[in-house]
Amino acid sequence: MKEAKLIGVDWGLSNLRAFLYDAHGRVMAEKRAPLGVGGMAEGGFEEALVSVIRDWPRAQRLILCGMVGSRKGWAEAPYVECPAGAQSIAAAMIEVPSQLGPVLIAPGLSATSADRLQEIMRGEETQIVGALADAQPNFIIAPGTHSKWTRIDNSAVSSIRTYMTGEVYATLKTHSILAQLMDGDTHDAPAFTLGVRRALASPALLNLLFSVRAEGLFARIPAHALAAYLSGILIGSEIANGLAHHEFARHTPILVIGAREIVDLYMTALHLAGVNEVSSRDGADAAARGLWTLAQAKPAA
Amino acid sequence: MKEAKLIGVDWGLSNLRAFLYDAHGRVMAEKRAPLGVGGMAEGGFEEALVSVIRDWPRAQRLILCGMVGSRKGWAEAPYVECPAGAQSIAAAMIEVPSQLGPVLIAPGLSATSADRLQEIMRGEETQIVGALADAQPNFIIAPGTHSKWTRIDNSAVSSIRTYMTGEVYATLKTHSILAQLMDGDTHDAPAFTLGVRRALASPALLNLLFSVRAEGLFARIPAHALAAYLSGILIGSEIANGLAHHEFARHTPILVIGAREIVDLYMTALHLAGVNEVSSRDGADAAARGLWTLAQAKPAA
Repeated sequence: MKEAKLIGVDWGLSNLRAFLYDAHGRVMAEKRAPLGVGGMAEGGFEEALVSVIRDWPRAQRLILCGMVGSRKGWAEAPYVECPAGAQSIAAAMIEVPSQLGPVLIAPGLSATSADRLQEIMRGEETQIVGALADAQPNFIIAPGTHSKWTRIDNSAVSSIRTYMTGEVYATLKTHSILAQLMDGDTHDAPAFTLGVRRALASPALLNLLFSVRAEGLFARIPAHALAAYLSGILIGSEIANGLAHHEFARHTPILVIGAREIVDLYMTALHLAGVNEVSSRDGADAAARGLWTLAQAKPAA
Repeated sequence: MKEAKLIGVDWGLSNLRAFLYDAHGRVMAEKRAPLGVGGMAEGGFEEALVSVIRDWPRAQRLILCGMVGSRKGWAEAPYVECPAGAQSIAAAMIEVPSQLGPVLIAPGLSATSADRLQEIMRGEETQIVGALADAQPNFIIAPGTHSKWTRIDNSAVSSIRTYMTGEVYATLKTHSILAQLMDGDTHDAPAFTLGVRRALASPALLNLLFSVRAEGLFARIPAHALAAYLSGILIGSEIANGLAHHEFARHTPILVIGAREIVDLYMTALHLAGVNEVSSRDGADAAARGLWTLAQAKPAA
């Protein structure tokens, strides 16, 4: 193969993942590199991309998504206001020149919630576009550092609600007084379940967070299981709040997009909350499909 | 004066405060030192205390309270189970020998909440004992790193509920992605009020925490006011949860014990929540009074 149809790159804060497609949109090769936007020097993006895809054939088109399009990325691709689907996201891609030819960068989405909070996403929109190419869920959850709950209407994202679940977990686990009591962060199903159940039963998250300390101090939960208990409290709290806010979500099929381990935690917690119609999609796979879909939605000039 | 009646020490995680009393329980002198339990080497407690009160007259009695009685302190004074008032706290003080004579260390309190969570406090019980020597509130809030809501029945603490408010604030402000957007932590009344109002209106704390980022990114709240907004969200969430859990607290006089600045924030937030019968007491003053009260409650052998 002399020339590939498309190279797509999901370029996040801590690493990037590049996909090489054949003419039918199938991923022929994939690379990961720890060259995240967070650690990138200004002007380093082009060089980093060249180094990653050096041994791949040249591609007719290059499309990037994720934090690479943020203010701290290669170039800022302004947020598109919801409702937005593949067509409007593709139309808002910006083009930057490079030694590899023109590079398209996908925008993020913005929305104002019913209670007037500013909402945004960047990167998840491409996973969602990919998921919607193959299925018609009414509701998608993309868990992670900042977990995104999105309502889907007519194949477009109509609303966004973000929960800072993963970041609060990582920050408290590493930097708070809770860290002293924890021994590792291996998964512990009973402790995770206990955390979820308590969060589904009590709205007082700040009180439940303290219980991680007290239950650990009294050895009612062993040190090796405290991180799982904390994770259960936070994910349980997100799900309790999310289902209370989106009443219809409980009665509609929900799609969860993400990495295997985190998707499993969310599916367990959703089941504990009484939601049974849940399916899942691998996050990297959805991003790859989304980048291809955006390419299709914006024919080359 | 050759010999003082009592020296009392409120010895917390990050610093200690020592009080010298006259025969009537009035504080004649006071010292502060950054010799907190957190940074103390094993065996260093006696030396640290001697260094702080070196130029004070010798005291007939020495009483300590706070984290100095924890597992990581001078010696562990086991928790006393609630309900507990001055008499039972005083009776459970432990005695350790020292070159200054026998030293009494006050215990903390433990309780199991209605929803079966383990609850504890250490240090606040002495402030509460001090406050109850002068007033008869039915409800006391001691805000701080771990904010304590306590119900008072018959001059004894009958229940405890802890909110990890201060610690979540400090951890997120310093170590999360929110830190990048914040410029200092000066108080900003409108941003604090906005945070409190939103937290009183929405139970979704993890969603509101993300709004600190989104509102900052879109410059809807200026960088210098974001810390105050975060503080408002967390204190507002605590108060919404606390009042929902303790329904009667809304209709009973509440006493808030603590340092001036934090007490002011809580009083503002309680007023926004519709609680108007709120009074306050300085935390150091309450601790000083509490140490004296414990001495009275346990006559010297």
